[in-house]
Amino acid sequence: MKKTTSVLICFLILAFTGIISGQNTKVNTAASVIETIIKQTKSEPVPNTVDVIKAGDPLTPVKGIVTTMFATMDVLKKAVAMNCNLIIAHEPVFYNHRDEIQQFQNDPVYLEKKRYIDEHKLVIWRFHDYIHRIQPDAIDYGMALKLDWLKYTDGTSVERFVMPETTLKELTITLKKVFPVNAFNIIGDPEMKLTKVVFSAGAPGSIYHFRLLEDDNVEVVIAGEVPQWETYEYVRDAVSQGRKKAIIFLGHVTSEEPGMEYCAQWLKGFIKDIPIHFVESGPSYRTY
Amino acid sequence: MKKTTSVLICFLILAFTGIISGQNTKVNTAASVIETIIKQTKSEPVPNTVDVIKAGDPLTPVKGIVTTMFATMDVLKKAVAMNCNLIIAHEPVFYNHRDEIQQFQNDPVYLEKKRYIDEHKLVIWRFHDYIHRIQPDAIDYGMALKLDWLKYTDGTSVERFVMPETTLKELTITLKKVFPVNAFNIIGDPEMKLTKVVFSAGAPGSIYHFRLLEDDNVEVVIAGEVPQWETYEYVRDAVSQGRKKAIIFLGHVTSEEPGMEYCAQWLKGFIKDIPIHFVESGPSYRTY
Repeated sequence: MKKTTSVLICFLILAFTGIISGQNTKVNTAASVIETIIKQTKSEPVPNTVDVIKAGDPLTPVKGIVTTMFATMDVLKKAVAMNCNLIIAHEPVFYNHRDEIQQFQNDPVYLEKKRYIDEHKLVIWRFHDYIHRIQPDAIDYGMALKLDWLKYTDGTSVERFVMPETTLKELTITLKKVFPVNAFNIIGDPEMKLTKVVFSAGAPGSIYHFRLLEDDNVEVVIAGEVPQWETYEYVRDAVSQGRKKAIIFLGHVTSEEPGMEYCAQWLKGFIKDIPIHFVESGPSYRTY
Repeated sequence: MKKTTSVLICFLILAFTGIISGQNTKVNTAASVIETIIKQTKSEPVPNTVDVIKAGDPLTPVKGIVTTMFATMDVLKKAVAMNCNLIIAHEPVFYNHRDEIQQFQNDPVYLEKKRYIDEHKLVIWRFHDYIHRIQPDAIDYGMALKLDWLKYTDGTSVERFVMPETTLKELTITLKKVFPVNAFNIIGDPEMKLTKVVFSAGAPGSIYHFRLLEDDNVEVVIAGEVPQWETYEYVRDAVSQGRKKAIIFLGHVTSEEPGMEYCAQWLKGFIKDIPIHFVESGPSYRTY
């Protein structure tokens, strides 16, 4: 009976593996790979999503996948060198949120990038709205992993941390060790003691920041970017009023790139027969 | 005849001075001071302008004027200490472009700032759309003065400079000497040789930057700020394509504060009977 059960379990495992493999065998065009990925996010359909193919033929057979923060010229060249033709980027390819290209019809930078994509038959898909809807948000999870801060969460969120008491200065030094490339923009008293930190990836807008900063359970926000006349000035005034609040802007790329690094790992969990690589785009700027 | 002419000229000068003084004598409420200033810009009326009184009673008699980049809590306190009650700020008071306050009705930072303004009977007026419409744009003129770069203009513009050949690295060092407080964000080859520089104050949007960067007469843009997924990535790709282009983001405050310093000087040219001071708000953040 036990043996029969074991055989049955083995059969079921093999059958299940077979089904997964079967799915993967079908997953060969860019369109079908993308469909599989979206399904795996378990998100409801996102209306008017930016997660569409930005360039290339959806029916292109996928030889290899690159995940990245921005599909920069350098990332595209690295993808080609690695024989990957599906680039999954978190952010736009053509310098505006909706990748509107009408304004670039005579622009040499756009035209050369587009030509490179076409000549190398690349497909670029944006993975933004859906990756943020994975439970937990895979961009936030990637950051918590990168910082080794999952131990500071209460298990219900991967963005909110309660850590052993430290100062804003010490927290900044800790972050700098992980992200040494360029300067952060910081507002707050360096000597402020803190335990309660929240991570706000990318550019969710200042209203989102304001709500976080109003929360008694938040002392420090670690953010991506925001217009400087918005959250920056709010926190400057809050600090001037003697409030125990601070914000550290890591920069947009730095705040979300760990999420796209984790994305490659997540994809490997269900796409078994296509090579998958994370390629770092890195911050666009240096600071001086 | 000559004597008669001289007397006539003297009379006209005195009469003219009298008219100006007469105007200034009337210029005693915030509303009338603002009206005088707008008239002096010689701009056509700006539809839907943000240049309105953001807080305070328009009929408040003006004791003294402060010009500043941002009416921060600290700037307000300095104004009060200097016995000034009209604050002329280039940017919003309440953390969003149109100073919409609906979202802050329960926000402690907003409520405390508003209370301070009310208790000290301050009037805050935004001087943005109209100061940019002065010919030449007084914000740009203030920057050219601050950098001592008027000598590099062709006389038709105060934003476009042709300077003795230098490198991006040397240009950055020059700028850092003038603005030492916090880091700039820079994209471009440090060794790139250049002579053609354009200044783009504040946050005019990436489309404006793209048009500048497409121009053969522009090698380097000195900018305020922009979303990092826009101009930043465009210039990164342009550089990667081998183009002789670069951009230096000074930060929003740094890019426009010299203009508000110049504004005080400009106001003193026609407002003679009210004390006028420039108060530096300085950058909101430090960099690390």
